[in-house]
Amino acid sequence: MPRTPPGTRADYRAFVTIQTRWSDNDEYGHMNNAAYLQIFDTGISRWQMAQGIVLRGPGAIRIVVVETGCRYHAELGFPDPIDVGIRVGHLGRSSVRFEVGLFRGDDDAASAEGHFAQVLTDAAGAPTPIDGDLRAIFAAIATA
Amino acid sequence: MPRTPPGTRADYRAFVTIQTRWSDNDEYGHMNNAAYLQIFDTGISRWQMAQGIVLRGPGAIRIVVVETGCRYHAELGFPDPIDVGIRVGHLGRSSVRFEVGLFRGDDDAASAEGHFAQVLTDAAGAPTPIDGDLRAIFAAIATA
Amino acid sequence: MPRTPPGTRADYRAFVTIQTRWSDNDEYGHMNNAAYLQIFDTGISRWQMAQGIVLRGPGAIRIVVVETGCRYHAELGFPDPIDVGIRVGHLGRSSVRFEVGLFRGDDDAASAEGHFAQVLTDAAGAPTPIDGDLRAIFAAIATA
Amino acid sequence: MPRTPPGTRADYRAFVTIQTRWSDNDEYGHMNNAAYLQIFDTGISRWQMAQGIVLRGPGAIRIVVVETGCRYHAELGFPDPIDVGIRVGHLGRSSVRFEVGLFRGDDDAASAEGHFAQVLTDAAGAPTPIDGDLRAIFAAIATA
Repeated sequence: MPRTPPGTRADYRAFVTIQTRWSDNDEYGHMNNAAYLQIFDTGISRWQMAQGIVLRGPGAIRIVVVETGCRYHAELGFPDPIDVGIRVGHLGRSSVRFEVGLFRGDDDAASAEGHFAQVLTDAAGAPTPIDGDLRAIFAAIATA
Repeated sequence: MPRTPPGTRADYRAFVTIQTRWSDNDEYGHMNNAAYLQIFDTGISRWQMAQGIVLRGPGAIRIVVVETGCRYHAELGFPDPIDVGIRVGHLGRSSVRFEVGLFRGDDDAASAEGHFAQVLTDAAGAPTPIDGDLRAIFAAIATA
Repeated sequence: MPRTPPGTRADYRAFVTIQTRWSDNDEYGHMNNAAYLQIFDTGISRWQMAQGIVLRGPGAIRIVVVETGCRYHAELGFPDPIDVGIRVGHLGRSSVRFEVGLFRGDDDAASAEGHFAQVLTDAAGAPTPIDGDLRAIFAAIATA
Repeated sequence: MPRTPPGTRADYRAFVTIQTRWSDNDEYGHMNNAAYLQIFDTGISRWQMAQGIVLRGPGAIRIVVVETGCRYHAELGFPDPIDVGIRVGHLGRSSVRFEVGLFRGDDDAASAEGHFAQVLTDAAGAPTPIDGDLRAIFAAIATA
């Protein structure tokens, strides 16, 4: 159904493996749409935290999700572990677009692909430049 | 942050009210990204079932979600009930694009907007024309 | 399977209606075990908030869940709305046991029954007496 | 708060490691009650499937959860991985009680402990004896 063919592992720059749960599968026997978002969110967060970015507690940066999307190419579901491929597709002044691909088992083609567009803000919620270490971290997995 | 202003209630053709849950709010104190998808899914399903479309059990139609997306304009979260506005933004030969807006309380501007692109398939998974009663049901809330 | 027969509506003192979601049903076609807990949690929280108890934000009371349980008598699941019956089964010095029954449609017998044992604590996490208005609120739906 | 001290790793017979997700933490900054049940369910299912028990699809055994419970000893939450300790606390004619302990990091004391009581049924829903290979699998991790 998708007009563009699924991406492959080579299209992504970092990988995090995420487990599925019994409750992820809905009445149709495959993973519910919302569970994909939990997996995107967890994969990106874990990668960000592994780079030293503070997402939780009083010292956390304020990074707001402004848009998400997902294209479903093939079924995924419990009990398969999922490799989440991650890349930065766009790095703007105060915004960053994380693009993710979900890979089942040893598949080279993504079963789903999506994105999380995030904006860095100050305490008042105004967009703030992404610079210094944070910019370098995001730039390291940027493809464009 | 979004480039286009949020839609209003007048932009949608049908409405379903969905409750939020304590568990919808994440550590940041507002609704987690994945919870939005649960609400889209539930709102669209309930509207489809209310039109007489069979989504569950042996007589269910096979309608596959191929793409979802969400733009976040303003915070939502428990305990607010959410009015889910629904419209059909595109009705193709075998595909239909449901567009949804989430409205908090009496707000006229959407706090979030998204879409679910679905394809009708036969038992083998091949796209099948949407026609007859099903087409009429979808056409009744189409805007384009 | 349960040794004691299901409770009825008359066994509960307050009621909150909670909607189910498409994602609540798992691969077996009925509500996943974890979804019951989301419904208990949301029903009790909404009742507490409706009594004026502050559960969120800087002025929130600190009430910690120390034990939960659920006995499943009959299937529940999307799209059924659920009436959550609530009572206080035990009101101790600093602890309170909320007992809940989930009723489907117009059923008089509970499809599931469970409990949430909570303890009021101070900022350091030490148990604190439940007294004054808070005690009166809980006592109003106590059965023992 | 619990009257009995938390169990330790030595009290359990099998272990499965389960990841946490960003969405598991609720507004209070720790894992929501319902997420514990998802983790119990997933840990027990994965252990059962690893023993060769068929839980999904046309050849699945029919094993129904009749009761769950959880006692919370200490906080858990994303991003901690959780070791799920599993044992069979009771093996009846057609029922089995799985007892689980959740261990954070290298902790020897459980942060939470709970149980899942299950009953094997025939296609009509009537209790059926647990015998043969299935009984041997459960007996292998039984403590009583």
